[in-house]
Amino acid sequence: MQARASSGAITRTVHTVTGADGLVVSHVRRTRLPSGLRIVTEQMAGARSASIGVWVGVGSRDERATTHGASHFLEHLLFKGTTERSALDISIELDAVGGEFNAFTAKEYTCFHARVLSDDLPLAVDVLGDMITGSVIATHDVDAERDVILDEIAMHDDDPDDVVQNLLAELAWGADSALGRPIAGTTGSIEAMTPAQIKRFYRRHYAPSNTVISVAGALDHAAVVRAVKKAFGRHGWLETQAAPAPARTTTARRRPKVGPGEGRVDRPFEQVNLVIGREGLTRDDDRRYALGVLNTALGGGTSSRLFQEVRELRGLAYSVYSFASHYADSGLVGVAVGCLPDRTDEVLAVVRDQLRLIAADGITEEELSRGKGQLVGGMILGLEDSGSRMMRLGKNELVNGEVLGIDEVIARIEAVTLDEVREVAAEVFGRPELLALVGPA
Amino acid sequence: MQARASSGAITRTVHTVTGADGLVVSHVRRTRLPSGLRIVTEQMAGARSASIGVWVGVGSRDERATTHGASHFLEHLLFKGTTERSALDISIELDAVGGEFNAFTAKEYTCFHARVLSDDLPLAVDVLGDMITGSVIATHDVDAERDVILDEIAMHDDDPDDVVQNLLAELAWGADSALGRPIAGTTGSIEAMTPAQIKRFYRRHYAPSNTVISVAGALDHAAVVRAVKKAFGRHGWLETQAAPAPARTTTARRRPKVGPGEGRVDRPFEQVNLVIGREGLTRDDDRRYALGVLNTALGGGTSSRLFQEVRELRGLAYSVYSFASHYADSGLVGVAVGCLPDRTDEVLAVVRDQLRLIAADGITEEELSRGKGQLVGGMILGLEDSGSRMMRLGKNELVNGEVLGIDEVIARIEAVTLDEVREVAAEVFGRPELLALVGPA
Repeated sequence: MQARASSGAITRTVHTVTGADGLVVSHVRRTRLPSGLRIVTEQMAGARSASIGVWVGVGSRDERATTHGASHFLEHLLFKGTTERSALDISIELDAVGGEFNAFTAKEYTCFHARVLSDDLPLAVDVLGDMITGSVIATHDVDAERDVILDEIAMHDDDPDDVVQNLLAELAWGADSALGRPIAGTTGSIEAMTPAQIKRFYRRHYAPSNTVISVAGALDHAAVVRAVKKAFGRHGWLETQAAPAPARTTTARRRPKVGPGEGRVDRPFEQVNLVIGREGLTRDDDRRYALGVLNTALGGGTSSRLFQEVRELRGLAYSVYSFASHYADSGLVGVAVGCLPDRTDEVLAVVRDQLRLIAADGITEEELSRGKGQLVGGMILGLEDSGSRMMRLGKNELVNGEVLGIDEVIARIEAVTLDEVREVAAEVFGRPELLALVGPA
Repeated sequence: MQARASSGAITRTVHTVTGADGLVVSHVRRTRLPSGLRIVTEQMAGARSASIGVWVGVGSRDERATTHGASHFLEHLLFKGTTERSALDISIELDAVGGEFNAFTAKEYTCFHARVLSDDLPLAVDVLGDMITGSVIATHDVDAERDVILDEIAMHDDDPDDVVQNLLAELAWGADSALGRPIAGTTGSIEAMTPAQIKRFYRRHYAPSNTVISVAGALDHAAVVRAVKKAFGRHGWLETQAAPAPARTTTARRRPKVGPGEGRVDRPFEQVNLVIGREGLTRDDDRRYALGVLNTALGGGTSSRLFQEVRELRGLAYSVYSFASHYADSGLVGVAVGCLPDRTDEVLAVVRDQLRLIAADGITEEELSRGKGQLVGGMILGLEDSGSRMMRLGKNELVNGEVLGIDEVIARIEAVTLDEVREVAAEVFGRPELLALVGPA
């Protein structure tokens, strides 16, 4: 179904999920306003709350050295008040209804999100619209928030997981590349950033054509679209059509070179935290479903090879898992372990052995079937939560330009073959090794 | 409704929640088996998954110096295999259906929990029943898992929040008291613990009369009871009626003395993490609802006094919040802040000022109403999640011996008066100060 309303908005029912009992479980609908703003909703049968996210296609990889940390700085500053509301007003309105309200910044996008009872959804839309479109960014707020961010950077520096993941990104893509730099910036870049730079960054990237609003739960699509038009149209924002989209969506980016590399950060922690990584797959690579099954068999649960070999059989570490991250033009796979310093060599030997084995032979038929069950089961379990549905809608619409139906995602997982897993394992784990280590010297 | 089945089990409908539209939203039912094992379920309309928890009334406060860390050690060991299943079998069965499966140990209880699609609930009951009642605790597993726990302790030692909260407990109740000791034990106590000690601890505390099973989601109460009887009866466990309940539930414990005290752990972190605490309220204290509202106004959200004064106005810290914890015979309230070292004195001054103000004058009418809205709204939002309902049922049945209906909890929050908040603020924040600091010297 596709309808063009008199306003020029295009609305389409993307897919309808029907339960085994024949009742409609959810409807996904999408509206594109003339300004390019996209609104994707999923109406969930039986829900009493709604989750809303505003996804802006800007993150640390869109920054230059002089604006390093600007996306995250801006995420903080949008809470500091608009021409209509002070920072306290914003807090009070959403705290008063018990809403969960937060935001995060990633390498390729920034997300502001809230979860509220369905009666309070218009309020949440209104507050978010005001924040996104009418932020004041006053100089004294920039200075107070600068101190908050410097403290947040210090907090991340005390977190071994954050330190080792930042080191891995630096080794993979280089400290002078936007992808290789930490999302929050550095003490130096945050101290140097001026209100004028941040305002320019705001005007440049926060445009309707670069924004997706996703809502899941108890809702009515037409009512959401009306509320969004009102809330996001207030400061004339829906007419800002000229703002350019980020470079990665308008030009063909060259694939950044990855590794090999080894790096170590000496910190007086009790544990050594290490990641053994490789270049992975881009976000649109069709082999990512096979990689997902592979990742599950390798280190995705307590029955995985790494959990069994590192923790259950040898007691080498409490925390051990594998991961795969995807970006527009690059990706990483890796194994993360925290262990006592005198276990480091044995951990490295065991993990490298497992990676060699899996690169040579792939996984077994039983691991394939278990991995699929684990991925599909976990996905279906996640669907009861309006927050995770909102995240799925918003992220996919923003970074892929489409939202696959759950049934289609399940079909793609179920279709993965042993040969596909073997091929992707051989290719990815045959790539040069990245090794990041954080801990006592 | 109360029914005595021929088996001697007593089943009762505890309460039924009816929505605004007149439809039944959930049923809470409770069955007590002759062995004392309690099964509490909440059937949720529209749910497709179910969360199950097995709650055993044993935690670190039930340990002596020689068994310090035994509850948590045991929690790990129950995953290591039974007479029927190896550790790998346990992992495989639940990973294969995508179930989330985990456990945690607290000062007064241990909880094993899983979330699965409703069709897989019998499987989850069966695996949990086998683990709880038929654990082997083989010597070689104890040794491998000892290493895992030593690594987990090292991980907690690298986490500033954990270090400062452990220090606070030690200052409050004393390093030689069970309440004042860290839950996971120490390197020394874990290295010294023998399989025989752990087995005695297991036999002593894992008894039906000391256990509650809570399930929430898509379920049928009678079917859950049948599955529990089968799974937990397999190793003759339901006949172990003689095991004593933990001391705190059978004898009137004297209220442990709390503070004052000040302590500092020198660690080369980038941040100082500090907690300013006071003795709080016990779990059964009727004033805990007033304290809940007070805690919300003080440091429970971004509109709270502490967030506004410490972060928004002065930019002194990224993370600042207040908390209240409750135990059978004691409790703590506190304010936790992470800040840059050179901000410590100013943070202490600002927080102490706010605590003085709130002890002297309580909160405003507006803060009262906002705090209630925030607590009630947050609670209702939590109800959509079968996991949080399962947690509420299990913890309340185990530690309070009853589960209040949601409507009753809301009524108690709504009934809190300004005077009650003022009284509890004056009393609690008039108590001697505990100050725990972790960071660079």
